[in-house]
Amino acid sequence: MQVVVPYATRDPKSRLAGVLDADERRAFARAMRADVVDAVRDAGGEPTLLTTAPPRDAGGGAERTDGVPVVVDDRPLTDAVNDALPDEPGEAVAVVMADLALATAAPLSRLFETAGDVAIAPGRGGGTNALVVRHPDFRVDYHGASYRDHRRIAADAGLSVGVVDSMRLATDVDEPDDIAEVFLHGEGRAREWLADAGFEVVLREGRVGVARSD
Amino acid sequence: MQVVVPYATRDPKSRLAGVLDADERRAFARAMRADVVDAVRDAGGEPTLLTTAPPRDAGGGAERTDGVPVVVDDRPLTDAVNDALPDEPGEAVAVVMADLALATAAPLSRLFETAGDVAIAPGRGGGTNALVVRHPDFRVDYHGASYRDHRRIAADAGLSVGVVDSMRLATDVDEPDDIAEVFLHGEGRAREWLADAGFEVVLREGRVGVARSD
Repeated sequence: MQVVVPYATRDPKSRLAGVLDADERRAFARAMRADVVDAVRDAGGEPTLLTTAPPRDAGGGAERTDGVPVVVDDRPLTDAVNDALPDEPGEAVAVVMADLALATAAPLSRLFETAGDVAIAPGRGGGTNALVVRHPDFRVDYHGASYRDHRRIAADAGLSVGVVDSMRLATDVDEPDDIAEVFLHGEGRAREWLADAGFEVVLREGRVGVARSD
Repeated sequence: MQVVVPYATRDPKSRLAGVLDADERRAFARAMRADVVDAVRDAGGEPTLLTTAPPRDAGGGAERTDGVPVVVDDRPLTDAVNDALPDEPGEAVAVVMADLALATAAPLSRLFETAGDVAIAPGRGGGTNALVVRHPDFRVDYHGASYRDHRRIAADAGLSVGVVDSMRLATDVDEPDDIAEVFLHGEGRAREWLADAGFEVVLREGRVGVARSD
């Protein structure tokens, strides 16, 4: 399975600005991206990074991407992803967001195996965190509540839709509360990065949150 | 599978007080409970309501529970649930919270079929939204971050743990944002109740929320 992993290089994870500065957000976003790429490979997928600008390391040079091909496309997410989707019947392309820090091989394999012209893993809050497109008539629209829009787009084109019920794929890391989920269920570099950065789990009103000790 | 559905009758869903008054919260909680009971039955389970006081209808009389047996236990949740768990090897009891408004037969069947002395469906924020207990040495502790605690309790007793990765079971409806998930993915009475009460989906900062029109 060809798997596109979109990754915006400009001001990643801006809604975490209250708990992480700009350099930290970039480093944390890279750690999550590396976890997603590992999970895609573990599930038998062939990842390609789709970025808005060439990845740079801290010194401004070309960033190592651990052998993952990079496609640079500075257009909005929707246009860039649509360019990567199948043009011919019989092709299949998956799109997996780079901030799914809980993604592992098991739920991604479930996604890849879910039947349908389109298979969707909805995100919390109505997003589309991951999907598989197997029909050239489907195109994405990430603006707004994309889960409902994608179901409508598929229905309007007469295409079948499968839905994957996964907490791991539903959890995109956008807000401070999401960081707690990485602590609870993460198994990779993103969790390690948070621990190294001094975060720890705290209890708030019966739910788990995070606090920073340094 | 015997399935205990705990349901607190006193001031249910207090964190929804900003969007629903006390009578509405009670009605909404009942709608969610009915959906959970339906889903348990559809998955082949035999539900029992575990309540803190006899369910009453709006007039103060005994509330209809649609043929579901009711056990009244006014002790804290942890004590009441532990009393319902297996005493003998070979027994199995599931516990499914009454506010899992997205629960359907499919994820509950996955839970019931997940191997392990204990099988857990974690909730968002570190809770334990549903579990199956197949060993008399396991006891619950719902105080605090119960997912981690339950894993530790099992490990300390040398018991195996299975985990179910389900967005539907991970979504307990506690806060206004959770209501949006019911709108997006709900298929039963809770969603219908919200629509009748005048709620509708709105977009806020790229995620879906709810607003009330009446």
